[in-house]
Amino acid sequence: MGGDTGADVVVPAALQALADDPQLALILVGDQDTLREVLARHNGSAGERLRIHHASQVVSMDDLPSHALRSKKDSSMRVAINLVKEGAAQACVSAGNTGALMATARFVLKMLPGVNRPAICTTLPTLRGHVHVLDLGANVDSSAEHLFEFAVMGSELAAAIDGNPAPTIGLLNIGEEEIKGNEQVKQAAQLLQNSKLNYIGYVEGDGIYAGDADVVVCDGFVGNVMLKTSEGVVKMVVAFMREAFQRNLFTKLSALVVLPVMRALKKRIDPREYNGASLLGLRGIVVKSHGSADAKAFATAIREAVQEVKQNVPQRIRNKLETVLVEERVG
Amino acid sequence: MGGDTGADVVVPAALQALADDPQLALILVGDQDTLREVLARHNGSAGERLRIHHASQVVSMDDLPSHALRSKKDSSMRVAINLVKEGAAQACVSAGNTGALMATARFVLKMLPGVNRPAICTTLPTLRGHVHVLDLGANVDSSAEHLFEFAVMGSELAAAIDGNPAPTIGLLNIGEEEIKGNEQVKQAAQLLQNSKLNYIGYVEGDGIYAGDADVVVCDGFVGNVMLKTSEGVVKMVVAFMREAFQRNLFTKLSALVVLPVMRALKKRIDPREYNGASLLGLRGIVVKSHGSADAKAFATAIREAVQEVKQNVPQRIRNKLETVLVEERVG
Repeated sequence: MGGDTGADVVVPAALQALADDPQLALILVGDQDTLREVLARHNGSAGERLRIHHASQVVSMDDLPSHALRSKKDSSMRVAINLVKEGAAQACVSAGNTGALMATARFVLKMLPGVNRPAICTTLPTLRGHVHVLDLGANVDSSAEHLFEFAVMGSELAAAIDGNPAPTIGLLNIGEEEIKGNEQVKQAAQLLQNSKLNYIGYVEGDGIYAGDADVVVCDGFVGNVMLKTSEGVVKMVVAFMREAFQRNLFTKLSALVVLPVMRALKKRIDPREYNGASLLGLRGIVVKSHGSADAKAFATAIREAVQEVKQNVPQRIRNKLETVLVEERVG
Repeated sequence: MGGDTGADVVVPAALQALADDPQLALILVGDQDTLREVLARHNGSAGERLRIHHASQVVSMDDLPSHALRSKKDSSMRVAINLVKEGAAQACVSAGNTGALMATARFVLKMLPGVNRPAICTTLPTLRGHVHVLDLGANVDSSAEHLFEFAVMGSELAAAIDGNPAPTIGLLNIGEEEIKGNEQVKQAAQLLQNSKLNYIGYVEGDGIYAGDADVVVCDGFVGNVMLKTSEGVVKMVVAFMREAFQRNLFTKLSALVVLPVMRALKKRIDPREYNGASLLGLRGIVVKSHGSADAKAFATAIREAVQEVKQNVPQRIRNKLETVLVEERVG
C-alpha cells in the first residue's frame, strides 16, 4: 500500500474488518517491515486470516499510470492486483492513485468480453436511500455505446448489492439547453429505451440526490465534477455551520445542545459511510478507497469488496452483457 | 411575465427594488389587467418609476425556443427584450424558460462582435466569498475557443461587479483521468496560458466552493450538472437536518435553541442571495432569475441587472474581446 493512505490507515481498518466478519481473510500488501511494525502498534499480528505479502515499491499519487505500469512492477498496487489475477485473493482494495489503479487493473486482469471501457461506480446517499453513480472519471468523451455499457454494469451492480432485480436507471442530463442535452446522451437514451433495462429517462443533477433513480449514468468527466462538487458543497456547509456556532457564547453553548442532532446528520452525509468505488468491467474485483479515507472509511471499502465477492459481480456483469448483446442481435 | 414565476412574485419584488434604490425605474411587461390587479393587491400603483407595458402572450416552460421565437412575438419575454433593443429599457430580467430567453435575446439583441456563443454566468458562495461560474447550460460540446471566450466574458463580468481588475480564472477539470481532462479543456488551458487573463490553472469540483478561483469556466453541460447537483446536495442536507431535529422532544426543543445559528447558516447558502444569472455575450443586458425564485430572490436578480447597467458590462466585454483578439493577432 502507499499513496495518501498508508499502513496507519489500512492496518487498523483491516483489523476492524476481520473482527466484524469472521469469514474474512486479508492479505496486506506492502513493505513487510513497515506492516509488521504498524500491526504490532495496533496490537495485531499476522496469522492465517491476516497475511503479509511483501512489495518493495509504491505508486505515488503523482505517478503517471504509464510510468506505474512500466517501472513499478513490484509496487503494492501491482502485486495486490496480481494476487487477484492468480486467484490468491478474490478482490483488491486500494486507496492509491486512481489512474494507475485502473490502468494496472485493466492490464493485469483484462476486461470482460463485451466491455469496451471499464467504469468507476460509487454509492451516494439520497433523500430516499442511496444511488449508484457511474462513470466517475475512468473515461472522458464517452460515446452513446459506452454510456449504455455503463448502464448495464451499474444495473447489475445495483441488482447484486441491493438485491433489487430491476433497479431504475437514469441518464444524467440537463434541462436548460435548447436542444436538450448533447448528442451522446440523446443517442444513449435511444439505446436504453430499446433495451430491457429498467430505464426511466433523464435525471438532472438535483435528481441524483432526490433519489430519482437507483442508478445514474454519465460520462466520467461529468461524473467526476458532480462527485467533487458534492464534496465541496458539503465541506462548505459544514464550515459555515462551524462558524455560525462559533459566533458567541450563546451559539457555542447551543452547539452542545444540538450535538446529538449534528451527529445523526453527519452520519447520514458522512462520505466514510459510502466509501469504496467499484472498478467495473474487469475480470476481477477492484475497489478504490478515497485517497483521504480514514480507517473507518477504508473498512467500508473492504465491506464493499466482500459484498461484490459474495455476489460474484464480475460474472453477473458478464452474463448480463451477453444477454444484452444477444437481445441486440435478435432485436 | 409568465413561466413558473408570475406577477405574484415579480410585482412585490419590483416594489421592493424600487423602495431600495431611488434611482431605479422599472417597466412591468405582461398582461396589463393582471399586473394592475396584483399591483393594487400589494398596495402599489403604476407611475413614473413603475410603468406597465402590455404583452398578450406568455412563453411557457415547455415551449421550445424555436416555437417561442416564431409564434410568440407578443410574449412578455419578447416584448421585454424588444424594449432593451429599442433603448426603452437598459436591461431585461426574466424568470421564464431559459432556452427561449437565450434564443430570443440572441435573435433580438444579437451577439457582440467576436462572440461565437453567448454563455450563462451565475454567482455562487464559496468558503472565501463568491465565485462566478460559466457556462451553465447555454452551450453543450464547447470547443477550446468557446471556453476561452467564456473566460474573457467571465473575467470582465467579475472585474465589473467585484471591482477586481484581475480576477483569477480557473478551468474546471478532473484529476482522476489518466490523461487528465478532455481535449477541449487541455487546449483551452493552452489558450488561457498564452493570454493576459489572470489564469491560475485547473480547478476541480470541490475547488469551486473552496474559492480556488474568482471565475470558473466550463462547458454548459458540465456547468449545469454542477449547479443542479449543488442544489440537490443542499436540499438533501437541509431535509436530513429537519428529520434529525424532528426525532424526539429533546431534539425538537434543541431546534429552537439553534434557530439563530440556523438562520445565519441559511443566509450564507441561500440561493436567493445569489439569484440572477447573466446572459453574457449579447449586445444588451439580460438576467435570468431562477424559475422557482420568490420575491426576495427576484429582487436580487433585479439588483444584479442594475449593477451590470451601472458597469456597462456588454461594452466592457466588447472592449476586452477586442483587446484579446488584437493580442492574439499581434502575439
